[in-house]
Amino acid sequence: MGDTIMEVTGFKAGAVRAGIRGKDRLDVGLIYSEVPAAAAGVFTTSQVKAAPVLLDMEHLRNGKAQAIIVNSGIANACTGAQGMELARGTARLVGEHLGIAADLVQVASTGVIGNQLELSIFTNCMDKLVTGLNETAFMDVARAMMTTDTVSKTAVRTISIGGEKITLAGMAKGAGMIMPNMATMLSFILTDASISPDVLKSMLQKSADLSFNAITVDGDTSTNDSVIVLANGMAGNTRIADEASEDGRVFQECLNDLCLDLALQIVRDGEGATKFITVHVKGAESGTEAAQAARTVANSSLVKTAFFGEDANWGRIIAALGRSGISFDAEKVDIFFDDVIMVKDGLGQGPEQEEKATDVLKKNSFSVIIDLKKGSAAWKIYTCDLSMDYIKINADYRT
Amino acid sequence: MGDTIMEVTGFKAGAVRAGIRGKDRLDVGLIYSEVPAAAAGVFTTSQVKAAPVLLDMEHLRNGKAQAIIVNSGIANACTGAQGMELARGTARLVGEHLGIAADLVQVASTGVIGNQLELSIFTNCMDKLVTGLNETAFMDVARAMMTTDTVSKTAVRTISIGGEKITLAGMAKGAGMIMPNMATMLSFILTDASISPDVLKSMLQKSADLSFNAITVDGDTSTNDSVIVLANGMAGNTRIADEASEDGRVFQECLNDLCLDLALQIVRDGEGATKFITVHVKGAESGTEAAQAARTVANSSLVKTAFFGEDANWGRIIAALGRSGISFDAEKVDIFFDDVIMVKDGLGQGPEQEEKATDVLKKNSFSVIIDLKKGSAAWKIYTCDLSMDYIKINADYRT
Repeated sequence: MGDTIMEVTGFKAGAVRAGIRGKDRLDVGLIYSEVPAAAAGVFTTSQVKAAPVLLDMEHLRNGKAQAIIVNSGIANACTGAQGMELARGTARLVGEHLGIAADLVQVASTGVIGNQLELSIFTNCMDKLVTGLNETAFMDVARAMMTTDTVSKTAVRTISIGGEKITLAGMAKGAGMIMPNMATMLSFILTDASISPDVLKSMLQKSADLSFNAITVDGDTSTNDSVIVLANGMAGNTRIADEASEDGRVFQECLNDLCLDLALQIVRDGEGATKFITVHVKGAESGTEAAQAARTVANSSLVKTAFFGEDANWGRIIAALGRSGISFDAEKVDIFFDDVIMVKDGLGQGPEQEEKATDVLKKNSFSVIIDLKKGSAAWKIYTCDLSMDYIKINADYRT
Repeated sequence: MGDTIMEVTGFKAGAVRAGIRGKDRLDVGLIYSEVPAAAAGVFTTSQVKAAPVLLDMEHLRNGKAQAIIVNSGIANACTGAQGMELARGTARLVGEHLGIAADLVQVASTGVIGNQLELSIFTNCMDKLVTGLNETAFMDVARAMMTTDTVSKTAVRTISIGGEKITLAGMAKGAGMIMPNMATMLSFILTDASISPDVLKSMLQKSADLSFNAITVDGDTSTNDSVIVLANGMAGNTRIADEASEDGRVFQECLNDLCLDLALQIVRDGEGATKFITVHVKGAESGTEAAQAARTVANSSLVKTAFFGEDANWGRIIAALGRSGISFDAEKVDIFFDDVIMVKDGLGQGPEQEEKATDVLKKNSFSVIIDLKKGSAAWKIYTCDLSMDYIKINADYRT
């Protein structure tokens, strides 16, 4: 669990039990800004995008939003025209109750793919949801969007820009596709900073690439993945309109830090995970190349089971690199587990080093550092191991 | 286990216990043709190729070979100059004992990555190995190259070309990277057909694409994967010099059939496998596109655990398609489990169909058919499910 005290000037939140996931669970949440906020989103790259994702992308064209409604239990993905109409209807309903335009509403759903949501679920709970909005209920929303997450995921940061205190607060859910049919990583970030929508969009993409796009649990991308940031400007700072400015730099750094915090909370809650692993590829010709190599290693079932078994099995790492699609000279590669060198110039360093490396693998958290010695670019991908519990969780759900 | 009676005119074989894998296991095998054979190979596409793979590619430049020596226990991969010298030394040694040129010898190794083999292992057993060569010991070679395969894998076919009876006999080992450090798929195919090396090479590539390159257990490619075919011409048929000829067509069809038989034996012996699954993508614009989509579905840990759990979870299939990198219209896709339609035009077909589909998943062997409705190309990928035993096998080896 992350930071628990979340308050951001001008934002309110609330959550209710709407009955999508049974009677005892918060399953619909609402976030509201008193004024329209600069808004940006990063969404799944899947060819199959859920209805709410398509709607949000459309609504964000003007760079503004004022509310986010989220439900868990049903993903509203692969639901055709009916699903799209439901997403639109939900935005309209929220808009009417809050007295704002429907296109200022972002909609997010997570849960079973292929099932239809009923609009009555939202009409029945909307009064209660809107009446209950308050300044301190963000944790309730973080809980309402959980599926089989074992903990809620939140993070808060404050910075000072031009003498004004600015808060960034974020929440996230997901751990790959935790449960059968339960897809989706969702994250909402709220800030009272004043910032232009274009700059916010560009900054969010950069932060997401270094955080949410740098984690992998099982290599499966969901149909609903969404990161949405709302900046309502109520901190009163001089508007950030230039990424390269000092204010821009401070904000970007804080946004990076917040997104990474949330993303790592997702990996640590990965299904069945017993280890947290950073795969750090350096000496590459480009960041893209380093990321491709690191992602292939981090997604290899054989590498991940070796980590679960605490087996200092560098042959599997080399094999994964070999099929990653990047070109490199195997006789130049060095591999470290934390500060223990296992492979130098492509050759194993013997039983003594292997013993030391095995001690590293016994820790809950460690790094695999791969030096390609081609260039100076590097990338980090964060992942977890592949355990028996992953199979249990993913195979036994319906039986 | 496949066919057990293997005899091909002019070929002899034998295997010994050389002590690489303990005293009680056959671990070095030799195949010999009385005359130089037309030869072709298909090797791992990994950037990291084991020393014997590099040597074999070099030796096959002239399209001829007369012997194959294979060992299990050590892969001779990531072994640098010393490993290359060992592979060359082994070929030289075999050549001297058989009285043939060293470059007519193909060398294959499978086992631990990163360990060095000693030439003394081969010098100590070579007399016994060569003396013991006989016409019926192919099954011993098939056993000598097993690592943790639970069964040996062999197949035999006969065809008639120009009135001459021609035999094709093949053996294979592997099931992904079955055990920690135990990598590699190997296959050797022997035939007494007379065929030109260039035609043989082209035909082998076609057969391999439809068989060995169409199977996946865990998506990991080894450093040692090799398929080698020797055609010694002793059947006395008119030399096949044209793929498009009737004789060429008959031979290609038989080679396809033999390779597919061996490849499917590998999948059925996949680590921890309880189900054999054919992922058949059709309605694609090209075979490449269909293969890419099918491979992504077949490699998804979430799809594979759903199959293990007998969960008719089509959302995971759609999600895998969505991230496969191909472009398609989600609202056109149909998905069948055998003849049961689960998804039509991107929409689920309800609980009744789901129940029928669940019955399909209870079988040991079934097909997932995905129709993209874009074009007329199709491809099949063969895979197995992902079970608790996979994790056990791959995590517990050293502990």
